[in-house]
Amino acid sequence: MAMSDPNRVLADLRHLRTIGAYKTGVHRPALSPEHVQSLHWLKGELDKLGHETVLDGIGNVIGRANVPGRKLLAGSHLESQNHAGWLDGPLGVVYALEAARAVAADPSLAGMAVDVGAWCDEEGHFGSFLGSRSICGEVSEEEIDKAKDRTHGTPMRDMLKAAGLAGLARATIDPKRYVGFFEAHIEQGDWLEAHDLKIGVVTSIVGITQMRITFKGQQNHAGTTRMAIRRDAGLAAAQFAVAVNESFPKLCGPRTVWTVGNIAFDPGSPSIIPGEAVMLFQFRDTDPEVHKRLEAEARRIAADIDKGPCSVVVEVPRRTKPAHMKAEFQDAIEAASEAAAPGRSTRIPSGAGHDAQVFANHLPSAMMFVPSIGGISHHWTENTSDEDIVLGARVYVDAAIRMLKG
Amino acid sequence: MAMSDPNRVLADLRHLRTIGAYKTGVHRPALSPEHVQSLHWLKGELDKLGHETVLDGIGNVIGRANVPGRKLLAGSHLESQNHAGWLDGPLGVVYALEAARAVAADPSLAGMAVDVGAWCDEEGHFGSFLGSRSICGEVSEEEIDKAKDRTHGTPMRDMLKAAGLAGLARATIDPKRYVGFFEAHIEQGDWLEAHDLKIGVVTSIVGITQMRITFKGQQNHAGTTRMAIRRDAGLAAAQFAVAVNESFPKLCGPRTVWTVGNIAFDPGSPSIIPGEAVMLFQFRDTDPEVHKRLEAEARRIAADIDKGPCSVVVEVPRRTKPAHMKAEFQDAIEAASEAAAPGRSTRIPSGAGHDAQVFANHLPSAMMFVPSIGGISHHWTENTSDEDIVLGARVYVDAAIRMLKG
Repeated sequence: MAMSDPNRVLADLRHLRTIGAYKTGVHRPALSPEHVQSLHWLKGELDKLGHETVLDGIGNVIGRANVPGRKLLAGSHLESQNHAGWLDGPLGVVYALEAARAVAADPSLAGMAVDVGAWCDEEGHFGSFLGSRSICGEVSEEEIDKAKDRTHGTPMRDMLKAAGLAGLARATIDPKRYVGFFEAHIEQGDWLEAHDLKIGVVTSIVGITQMRITFKGQQNHAGTTRMAIRRDAGLAAAQFAVAVNESFPKLCGPRTVWTVGNIAFDPGSPSIIPGEAVMLFQFRDTDPEVHKRLEAEARRIAADIDKGPCSVVVEVPRRTKPAHMKAEFQDAIEAASEAAAPGRSTRIPSGAGHDAQVFANHLPSAMMFVPSIGGISHHWTENTSDEDIVLGARVYVDAAIRMLKG
Repeated sequence: MAMSDPNRVLADLRHLRTIGAYKTGVHRPALSPEHVQSLHWLKGELDKLGHETVLDGIGNVIGRANVPGRKLLAGSHLESQNHAGWLDGPLGVVYALEAARAVAADPSLAGMAVDVGAWCDEEGHFGSFLGSRSICGEVSEEEIDKAKDRTHGTPMRDMLKAAGLAGLARATIDPKRYVGFFEAHIEQGDWLEAHDLKIGVVTSIVGITQMRITFKGQQNHAGTTRMAIRRDAGLAAAQFAVAVNESFPKLCGPRTVWTVGNIAFDPGSPSIIPGEAVMLFQFRDTDPEVHKRLEAEARRIAADIDKGPCSVVVEVPRRTKPAHMKAEFQDAIEAASEAAAPGRSTRIPSGAGHDAQVFANHLPSAMMFVPSIGGISHHWTENTSDEDIVLGARVYVDAAIRMLKG
């Protein structure tokens, strides 16, 4: 029976951890020399396995098994957030690689195979899911022309050139080749740990409604302007944040989350009434109906504040749709988890975005989570115990085979 | 009878407007070449008048009348906020100069005189009232050593050297020489204009309690962190701003003002729960009892929020005491206003800080306001009608003579 090799999984992950090491995590932004090095490592491993492998013109790696029969597409990403964790991305790539090796090595699985990929820039240094969207045929050359690194402003074209990838073709997938797509990831939350569970069977990936709300008042002297005539944009923004926090719980779903990530005051001086305040506000849920309700409520609160001394303009620069994972694949992951660790899995929605939500528009898709220690994510202290990593690999390989067998 | 010369007053103000002109205002930061040029202009005018005049080692100009008898100290400042108005400061300097000329020219006022000054950096580019505090003996060399321009970070010592003032002695005043200090200023608010009044008789200058309030929570992923376990520092800050706005009106005085000038979110990203938010919060009133009550209330609200998921630390980096203007000087201004424009003056506190609050600790002091069009201040569109400027000069000179006569 095809099985994952615990030592090989840990060795691969620990090797990747040395590429761009930062404290106990890694600093491996998309298309940085360290990220490109990790992509070449993956290409080398897939070459060794006999897959036909390319590192393409947007920094995707895809290794295709050169055998007939049913294929599963599997993978995740190798770049990191800035100064962040070692498993966010690599875990899913190494599990996929391990599944490809295990299936290839098992004569009883002849006629099946796992294609493995690393999708560039899931972490959004240059845009929104550029790698997975590119391989699904959703990215134009113009989008790449415009893309710039969010930290330094470097054009993506310059980074692709420096990486030796300029001018290369971009790979695309043929959906007919696959039974589906499968991605593993650390949970990035504390639900599994808090409930002493080992495997999260992802039911759906949240959609995100990202708003940019501009409050406009009148900049004026904080000493000489009477309270009665003030038009304080900062106060209006604070009132919005508090009002949302009071009314959303009555309208949201059981796992909805909402966040005011920033309010930028203009001019932001101690003795000047802010004339403008720009708020970044978002909410996430797996149910499109919840999104509709909450957007209407946010707009109602904004309109209410707009009746006061400040004007309010709501924009929605980003809106991603919730994605649902294939029911039979969820059953496959649960069955694999039951076999390895009875009673230790749960069905769970993903509050974070993942490449699987892009693939879900083109292929039946699946995701599974392993526990995050303390729920910590996007920070170099992010971690998962070796025991949980090894158990996750075992469940992943078993689930992948169940998906292939159908 | 000693009178102001309307044409001379307008000509002087219009000349100063050309030094560092910016749109219809001026850009004349403290110790900039343009500011230094304006100081030399003032020194020249006072020299012409026969005053013994110095431009000193901190950028103060003081011209002392070389005559025996009672003296009034008068003046304001010549530097501006960045890209700000043409009258904020210069109006009070030109009125003082005009009073000195008018008194000197009137033989019936022999034995009386007006000393004239421009106090450097009332606008706080390098610190808090450095010029007026220096001439009152309140500034150490160490304070100047440490002072840096708030816009560019240039050390004050470097700017003094570039201005040719390094190493010069700093002038001080002998309080026994003076009946008191008198400053005119634009109102910077809309009270006079809104009530069709021409002269504000300042009763007192507000004290400022400036707080820096740090809300600390836990930075985390905005998608995967459940609402129930969040420690959102930005939300805590917004709750403080809204709570203060609800409870302060029940505790404040009739003219108290309070302002959240900034909330700095850390890290301030759309998909990250802010782990820290630093708020700049201030309130102003002329009554020390009101300050005590409001500070207690602000601390109560902070303590209340501190019981929740975020910690709150309140600091008070700056606290200026309210200053009261001499009652007999207020009567003198009112009488002068009645003579020139019957029924068009009002007693009014100053919501902004002024050099007069520094002098009030050493001399009996007085202030008068002229109207600000639209109440606009600290902006290049700041303005006052020529008619109001001329009337203000007439009232100022008359009031100065009344103060000298006692």
